[in-house]
Amino acid sequence: MEMSAAELGELLNGEVIGDPSVRVHKLTKIEEGENGALSFLANPKYEAFAYETKASILIVNSDFEPQKDVQSTLIKVEDAYSSFASIMDKLVDRSAKTGRHVTAFVSPGAKVSEEAYIGPFCFIGEGAIIAAGVQLGAHISIGEGTIVGEHTKIEAGVKVYHDCEIGKNCVIHAGTVIGSDGFGFAPQTDGSFKKVPQLGKVIIEDEVEIGANVCIDRGTLGATRIARGVKLDNLIQVAHNVEIGANTVIAAQTGVSGSTKLGASCLIGGQVGFVGHISVAPGSKINAQSGVAKNIKQANKSWNGSPAFAFNDNLRSKVYFKRLPDLVRRIEDLEKELAKDQSNK
Amino acid sequence: MEMSAAELGELLNGEVIGDPSVRVHKLTKIEEGENGALSFLANPKYEAFAYETKASILIVNSDFEPQKDVQSTLIKVEDAYSSFASIMDKLVDRSAKTGRHVTAFVSPGAKVSEEAYIGPFCFIGEGAIIAAGVQLGAHISIGEGTIVGEHTKIEAGVKVYHDCEIGKNCVIHAGTVIGSDGFGFAPQTDGSFKKVPQLGKVIIEDEVEIGANVCIDRGTLGATRIARGVKLDNLIQVAHNVEIGANTVIAAQTGVSGSTKLGASCLIGGQVGFVGHISVAPGSKINAQSGVAKNIKQANKSWNGSPAFAFNDNLRSKVYFKRLPDLVRRIEDLEKELAKDQSNK
Amino acid sequence: MEMSAAELGELLNGEVIGDPSVRVHKLTKIEEGENGALSFLANPKYEAFAYETKASILIVNSDFEPQKDVQSTLIKVEDAYSSFASIMDKLVDRSAKTGRHVTAFVSPGAKVSEEAYIGPFCFIGEGAIIAAGVQLGAHISIGEGTIVGEHTKIEAGVKVYHDCEIGKNCVIHAGTVIGSDGFGFAPQTDGSFKKVPQLGKVIIEDEVEIGANVCIDRGTLGATRIARGVKLDNLIQVAHNVEIGANTVIAAQTGVSGSTKLGASCLIGGQVGFVGHISVAPGSKINAQSGVAKNIKQANKSWNGSPAFAFNDNLRSKVYFKRLPDLVRRIEDLEKELAKDQSNK
Repeated sequence: MEMSAAELGELLNGEVIGDPSVRVHKLTKIEEGENGALSFLANPKYEAFAYETKASILIVNSDFEPQKDVQSTLIKVEDAYSSFASIMDKLVDRSAKTGRHVTAFVSPGAKVSEEAYIGPFCFIGEGAIIAAGVQLGAHISIGEGTIVGEHTKIEAGVKVYHDCEIGKNCVIHAGTVIGSDGFGFAPQTDGSFKKVPQLGKVIIEDEVEIGANVCIDRGTLGATRIARGVKLDNLIQVAHNVEIGANTVIAAQTGVSGSTKLGASCLIGGQVGFVGHISVAPGSKINAQSGVAKNIKQANKSWNGSPAFAFNDNLRSKVYFKRLPDLVRRIEDLEKELAKDQSNK
Repeated sequence: MEMSAAELGELLNGEVIGDPSVRVHKLTKIEEGENGALSFLANPKYEAFAYETKASILIVNSDFEPQKDVQSTLIKVEDAYSSFASIMDKLVDRSAKTGRHVTAFVSPGAKVSEEAYIGPFCFIGEGAIIAAGVQLGAHISIGEGTIVGEHTKIEAGVKVYHDCEIGKNCVIHAGTVIGSDGFGFAPQTDGSFKKVPQLGKVIIEDEVEIGANVCIDRGTLGATRIARGVKLDNLIQVAHNVEIGANTVIAAQTGVSGSTKLGASCLIGGQVGFVGHISVAPGSKINAQSGVAKNIKQANKSWNGSPAFAFNDNLRSKVYFKRLPDLVRRIEDLEKELAKDQSNK
Repeated sequence: MEMSAAELGELLNGEVIGDPSVRVHKLTKIEEGENGALSFLANPKYEAFAYETKASILIVNSDFEPQKDVQSTLIKVEDAYSSFASIMDKLVDRSAKTGRHVTAFVSPGAKVSEEAYIGPFCFIGEGAIIAAGVQLGAHISIGEGTIVGEHTKIEAGVKVYHDCEIGKNCVIHAGTVIGSDGFGFAPQTDGSFKKVPQLGKVIIEDEVEIGANVCIDRGTLGATRIARGVKLDNLIQVAHNVEIGANTVIAAQTGVSGSTKLGASCLIGGQVGFVGHISVAPGSKINAQSGVAKNIKQANKSWNGSPAFAFNDNLRSKVYFKRLPDLVRRIEDLEKELAKDQSNK
């Protein structure tokens, strides 16, 4: 990649402010900008770096008005982050491999497209179907009867159990487990627990991205379902028969208990917990570390706390929580004053 | 499977209400019931589905009195969930494989029963013992000197370090790590930390089920011990020298710090944290997201919050937490009233 | 190992109290002490065991003054834990293997030192560099262009993506993932999210220990960086472009969001969450289950709560949280008293 500010301005449909002939040949973060580098400013937290960066070109939002001198040539666009991401996108190696690594093992009854790539030490079980364009890294196990859709990329060490369905154009990161047994045990009279068989499966629709070391349990009956466009970060727990609606995004280390249904287009922070058997309305925003203990019926609201309630109300309670010692002092003062008044009568 | 309501009633020792000749050939969730399906109602949250389901037969608790018309033939039993689970149990494929996958590697000094199955790309270290009936999935590593007891099933990608002991009839799900070093470091005068060797092991007793991507560290000295019948969900952390009592059940993403001892028959929610070096009495129930910071001495009590205290007390405090803005207003009102009273004198 | 109390006293530069000729040949925990065993007492919580243990020799801190009879010969040292750890250290098997297991696959363009050991079913990608003394367990995948420094030990099933750098003398436990994509998606007008390419890498400096099933994402641009001497426990999430300062220690299940910078020598408890794009001053101590939502500017302070504030203030607020029902009662009493006073006028 080597481009001038003029060329970038045209490509991104942006306004060039400064020297249009300056050229860049690499991408950096704004705080690590250097001569010949293209960088960007989107998060206002980083504005100070705009006045210090040595990046030759800076992509900024159209409403950015420098408060000090900027050395870089600016390119003003509607959405600096998206524009920069589109340039990054041009640098991604999309060469797809085909064939099978010499160490891979494909069971005789599996159907693997000749246009798929099966990586080192992969194991593909009987009856599994691997579609065209699929890219499997090393040490992946695909269970019997499991289907992986076109152009899905699975990274090293992912384990998919039998009879699951993974859609097209998905990305699944290393170490993730899909289709493990749901956590279901029936208490016995002697205090022990008897395993409830987990006869369902996992269905992952198209365009889903799943982080590393995530766990998605199979349904007890029926399916655990991750709808189209969902994005899951690392170390997330998805229990049996959970359903996650389209385009919902969940940050790391969150857990969703059995049979809970999250609506579409929710934004869920990290380390959130959902109890089982509840429904969460579409567009819900849940703050990090919240605990959602009951149905959320109103769409597009923000929630916080454990147990979670309305975001702003929770913030207010947390402010007063911090001031509790002061409130107690005020109650004590009132008690003393009142006692004094009463004894004065 | 194909059975009539009459046959099911007899099998489950239940009372048939409706057409005893109706036949089922598949199992479904109540909300996905269809003609020819057997389903069940145990959780009252799902009662509404009983009046809508198209399942031909519904197993219900004996105290279930329909409030509206039900289309399904009912079978009333003492415990609908357990009865349904016992039917599911009949559908589980229990055919055990024997032998070694052609890609597996068994070290010459390991002892592997001819009645065990060693899956694709498994590695069995020197001196390891794999008993009869053991079923190993793909990509499993069993360290030197580790013992796996009869009929234990280990799923793909599990890593067991050296010199650990796993009992009989256990199930261990994919990606779980057993026997990693405990987290022990001695602070040095230069601010660095020196590793404390971890010379102990992990002992897992019989009938234990462990979820996916769980971590169980070995003891520093002596053993980390998971007693008979314990059930661990996914992504749980069990630190060095922890002991978990028989038949204790722990939900996903909970962490137990070093040397802590959980009694038998505890029920621990998800995302709970236990500090190190404490004891928790048998039968304790810990609510999800709680933080247990000190010994729990009374058995069979419920706890909640971070730090955790008695469940009902905690609920009450949480109710008032939500009302803190109102309480502050009341304190302000009192202050004004009192000031007014005093200035009126 | 077989040593007398006199020999141990000399080795540890300690004072022998009791029979200097008594000999030990094994190490145990104090509560499991037996004849012929060496044990230690460091945590005062365990003092009661000092009066019961059957360990022949007990290493104790120099300020330990027995309150009752002790059967063991005591060796008083400055730091009992460190001294005992140094004895444990002598028992560790440091024999380093060299060569390649017969099942390992090394890509032709990888550079693997003849003094390194490549374990069973390992895959080493093109252009990777494995230095002398490196010890790789089973089922490890080292991506293209990744560098592993001298004497680093990597346990079974670790997955390192392409173009990462791991320093010297590190230990990385089983199932850990290094270099997975950061969680970056640009919202599109149709409600879907477009993946932002993750073009950076992970740099792990020397002497770092990382637990099991940890996830460390690569930088979007630039690097995610784990500085020298950092110790990470199990199941930790480290997002893209995070920087963790030298000798910082983090307990299990903590998560650090994107671009956050933790200073050197911090002590972070388990299940802590850090929001993205913040800085935490060196020497900060963060209590377990805290949520750090903004910059911490003062070094060497303790923090607690979600959101976190000063440790002692937070403890005080938590005490009053527990007493909220009582505070409400006192407010009600005040209201009644005041109403009575006013109606009496």
